[in-house]
Amino acid sequence: MTSLLESVRQPRDLDRLSRAELDRLAAEIREFLIENVSRTGGHLGPNLGVVELTIALHRVFDSPRDALVWDVGHQAYVHKLLTGRHDFEKLRGRGGMSGYPARAESEHDIVENSHASTALSYADGIAKAYRVRGLTDRRVVGVIGDGALTGGMAWEALNNIAGGDLPVVIVVNDNERSYAPTIGGLANHLGTLRTTQGYERFLDWGKNALSRTPYVGGAIYETLHGVKKGLKDIVAPQGMFEDLGMKYIGPIDGHDVEAVESALRRAKAFGGPVIVHVLTRKGEGYEPARADVVHQLHQVNPKTNPETGLPFQITGTSWTDVFSEEMLKIGNDRADVVGITAAMLIPVGLHKFAQQYPERIYDVGIAEQHAATCATGLAYGGLHPVVAVYATFLNRCFDQVLMDAALHKAGVTFVLDRAGITGPDGASHHGVWDLSILQVVPGLRIAVPRDAAQVRSLVREAVEVDDAPTVVRFSKGSVGPEIEALERVDGVDVLRRAAKPHGEGDLLIVAAGPLAAAALEAAGQLAEGADGQEPIEATVVDPRWVKPVNPALVELARGHRAVVTVEDNGRVGGVGAAISQALQDAGVFRPTKVLGVPAEFQAHDERAAILARLGLDGSGIASAARTLLKN
Amino acid sequence: MTSLLESVRQPRDLDRLSRAELDRLAAEIREFLIENVSRTGGHLGPNLGVVELTIALHRVFDSPRDALVWDVGHQAYVHKLLTGRHDFEKLRGRGGMSGYPARAESEHDIVENSHASTALSYADGIAKAYRVRGLTDRRVVGVIGDGALTGGMAWEALNNIAGGDLPVVIVVNDNERSYAPTIGGLANHLGTLRTTQGYERFLDWGKNALSRTPYVGGAIYETLHGVKKGLKDIVAPQGMFEDLGMKYIGPIDGHDVEAVESALRRAKAFGGPVIVHVLTRKGEGYEPARADVVHQLHQVNPKTNPETGLPFQITGTSWTDVFSEEMLKIGNDRADVVGITAAMLIPVGLHKFAQQYPERIYDVGIAEQHAATCATGLAYGGLHPVVAVYATFLNRCFDQVLMDAALHKAGVTFVLDRAGITGPDGASHHGVWDLSILQVVPGLRIAVPRDAAQVRSLVREAVEVDDAPTVVRFSKGSVGPEIEALERVDGVDVLRRAAKPHGEGDLLIVAAGPLAAAALEAAGQLAEGADGQEPIEATVVDPRWVKPVNPALVELARGHRAVVTVEDNGRVGGVGAAISQALQDAGVFRPTKVLGVPAEFQAHDERAAILARLGLDGSGIASAARTLLKN
Repeated sequence: MTSLLESVRQPRDLDRLSRAELDRLAAEIREFLIENVSRTGGHLGPNLGVVELTIALHRVFDSPRDALVWDVGHQAYVHKLLTGRHDFEKLRGRGGMSGYPARAESEHDIVENSHASTALSYADGIAKAYRVRGLTDRRVVGVIGDGALTGGMAWEALNNIAGGDLPVVIVVNDNERSYAPTIGGLANHLGTLRTTQGYERFLDWGKNALSRTPYVGGAIYETLHGVKKGLKDIVAPQGMFEDLGMKYIGPIDGHDVEAVESALRRAKAFGGPVIVHVLTRKGEGYEPARADVVHQLHQVNPKTNPETGLPFQITGTSWTDVFSEEMLKIGNDRADVVGITAAMLIPVGLHKFAQQYPERIYDVGIAEQHAATCATGLAYGGLHPVVAVYATFLNRCFDQVLMDAALHKAGVTFVLDRAGITGPDGASHHGVWDLSILQVVPGLRIAVPRDAAQVRSLVREAVEVDDAPTVVRFSKGSVGPEIEALERVDGVDVLRRAAKPHGEGDLLIVAAGPLAAAALEAAGQLAEGADGQEPIEATVVDPRWVKPVNPALVELARGHRAVVTVEDNGRVGGVGAAISQALQDAGVFRPTKVLGVPAEFQAHDERAAILARLGLDGSGIASAARTLLKN
Repeated sequence: MTSLLESVRQPRDLDRLSRAELDRLAAEIREFLIENVSRTGGHLGPNLGVVELTIALHRVFDSPRDALVWDVGHQAYVHKLLTGRHDFEKLRGRGGMSGYPARAESEHDIVENSHASTALSYADGIAKAYRVRGLTDRRVVGVIGDGALTGGMAWEALNNIAGGDLPVVIVVNDNERSYAPTIGGLANHLGTLRTTQGYERFLDWGKNALSRTPYVGGAIYETLHGVKKGLKDIVAPQGMFEDLGMKYIGPIDGHDVEAVESALRRAKAFGGPVIVHVLTRKGEGYEPARADVVHQLHQVNPKTNPETGLPFQITGTSWTDVFSEEMLKIGNDRADVVGITAAMLIPVGLHKFAQQYPERIYDVGIAEQHAATCATGLAYGGLHPVVAVYATFLNRCFDQVLMDAALHKAGVTFVLDRAGITGPDGASHHGVWDLSILQVVPGLRIAVPRDAAQVRSLVREAVEVDDAPTVVRFSKGSVGPEIEALERVDGVDVLRRAAKPHGEGDLLIVAAGPLAAAALEAAGQLAEGADGQEPIEATVVDPRWVKPVNPALVELARGHRAVVTVEDNGRVGGVGAAISQALQDAGVFRPTKVLGVPAEFQAHDERAAILARLGLDGSGIASAARTLLKN
């Protein structure tokens, strides 16, 4: 810990610092972040981009009296440092600091949810509450990225904030490249803009910006000429904010503490809704990050070499990689298959498809609602879209999956990446909801592959379905070894047979997807009957398609005394609950234990550690099975 | 059926009509709608407003080759008439025509979902598909109201459409008063606008509009001076669309067929994304509708007097009325309780609260996502918000309820009106999802009142909870007679005791809320044991709070041989499934039958008829119970 940063323990400690000291502090913070985040992993680029902005925010506003709301929250490391949290030792690890704001950590943290585009709605609500309570001298600040402004709920909030007179300061953290440059669409995009007044106004804005902020002039002209999918996001705010009746200050060089501070003071003094448009650069001050032209080291893995910004080691094949390769092949086989991503082209593995078939890929921005309904339109138009999103973000378009895709029997395939327990990103990144909420969607079918071979075959099967939406969901991280089936019975893969003759087993274990390995481990332990336990003979099956419930599972259950289901998803209303209901409906009353994630938010930790703690490993499953059979 | 309308059986029949004949056709359509919809009930005002617009659309575009997408769809009656559907006899009734577009009815209908703000996403998808397939001469038209533009997903779609060059024509059907004039916020709103360029531009626009459309000049100036919450929606589009790089045509007098037709032809010829801004008036041409200054007869009940537009008969007290009165009292008792509506102030019963406490009510537009997260902000700021929405629209903010309200343990109360089977509005208006998807939300508590007294007490109990979100859900229509409890056991109301001594009943019926009456009827039938059936003694309980599962239910189940659960909600993953799981978890293995709505979309019909068909009436429940006990 270097000296100046060491001395800042709460925001008001910033008040006494001179301009030169603030610059030194910024440099120390960068050094600290690069050293620590390279070791622990985490969001390095976004935080390097907001060092000066965060210092200025805490100098101008008086947190927690004034409310600072960070959208997404992965850029709050500097905020954490300035509010007394200097222990980055176990960042994102068990018992360590969260990678996002966390209210248990500090009274300065408000929003823990890391889903995008929410900050302005929070800000509006907090400001309304202060007004009702007569706390009129308090200010509310929402900090939101230009990318997050493409999300519908940010527009809803703007519409409301602009219509009022509350003292809400909206800081648009415009970091030029929140997404990878999108392949294919840009030329068209610019072409359209050129024919309209919007482009002219944008040029004017560029000139203005140049004259006011010479420091970033070069960057602006680069932007002008084309590196950004979200170009219209830069163009739109000014005209639009004006139209909405909202005061606009900017654009401001976000790496000039004094300039940002001055803009924020003006915004604070205004006393009504106001936009402060700040231009920052992800990865600022760190060469390896700036050199990573696509992502600016948006997130680094643990054990990153701070010199190069590259990981020290390469992990195995990920679930995403397998999907990515298969999509490429499907694209070749079927000219009617198109891909959709919500600002996550590379993370969801659609980049290879995009390179090969640029005319068949759509990046819609952080706009899952539009993604789902646009996909329904694509299906109506005779294509088969594959919408690839993180499982937790599917929640954002539940209504569209139900009322657009399913009601219209549209052949849309949703590929849910990072499903189940994910790990260090914490509560709002675990994808443990989809297998439950999607159960209610009429006609929709869900597949859960257990290994790479199943990813390939189930994605293939899914895109063959043209009269209903389909879902394929898989985990984050490396895919495990392949698990061969003994046989396939009416679509259900039998992975292990109870040693007794068919129809007389003790226990049926139904394992959804990647937990099949743990289920097999459990079955092995049960058969051994160690520690004076009676041996228990278990059949283990993987239904592959978990919705609708395969009637073969009911028949299998008839031949066993009890049933255990295992899923990497909430245990309420998920795969197990559906199987349990199917058994009761069929009059097959067997004691059933549904294993899954309890209905609680799960904190950040390693995936394997969380699964073990929740009893979703071999011994946890075995133990639950023994208890069930004892009763 | 009058002569000219009779002769129009498909859109191309319009081609041969002269201007004078088109005007006559418009008059005939109005006459037809007033006569028929007054009798059957339905959305009269919105359809009277789009007569000329629909005629012009079908003259300029060649449906179904060109795709016409109607947002919300309740304004499609004219479209139905022009595409050969003249039988309005059983509109919205069983076996009759749907009140919305329906693909089973016609190849001219695309979207059946009546949730708002989706049309532009469909249009984008369809246009993309036509591009990929090389069908470049086809056009796609999305017709969307100004109100629906406040919904986030409409902005997401605009953002995408404007960024491309696809031939998408967006018709903004700006009917001035899609909402009731909002009480309270407007003066502030205008004040803000006046200080900015937006307001100046709006004045200019008003002058332009006047000169181009003298017919509606008066109405525009009325709007200018204040009747509309969505004023900024009128101001915003022009500047914003220009900023986005989208061609803009308008505003056009929507009741001048020739003017609309000319604008649409220009838009069609342009061949890229273009907005056509059409000014229409709900209820045009029908005095009783125009005189209804708040709603312009947005929707009329069956048996409306066509002379007055008023219903012939008054129905009893509705669930909404009971909530409305109680909110007024709560507002008096607690200064920290505030109300939020998503453009539904009167339909959800918050208007009385709004009149009494104008500084504590917020209409956020058709923006459920913002409503939920803004409410979380209000809770953070020290207030207790009550968000009142239709149950089916809660799906729109599932992620925000989960990741904002629940993750942050915010004391927000969601009041879900029109929950369960609703009736004539069809598949997308039934609120049969909430009790399932909300089961997965950690910490959230759900109450289901069975009668008026329970609405009052459960809403009271809900707003007392300040450390978690709460939900109170009730039905559409009239509330039934009060159902007294014999006793309350650990929070569970016992409505009937099995005649045998406690602990030895045949059957436990757990009835969630309004189906308690049917459950009691079933218990009566079962006890009679008519038609040679063995009498069955059933205990009937209403848990009042259905989430979390009350442990008292488990104890009650121990004392009975079998369990039947009844809910006006999907049977997958709902209240019954949760109770079933709780029983299994406690080792209380009792045959359990979960009764509810099957996982299928339910067509339009009367509520009672649908419930009976689904076995959710007295005899249906009794029959299911007998079958369960036989096995």
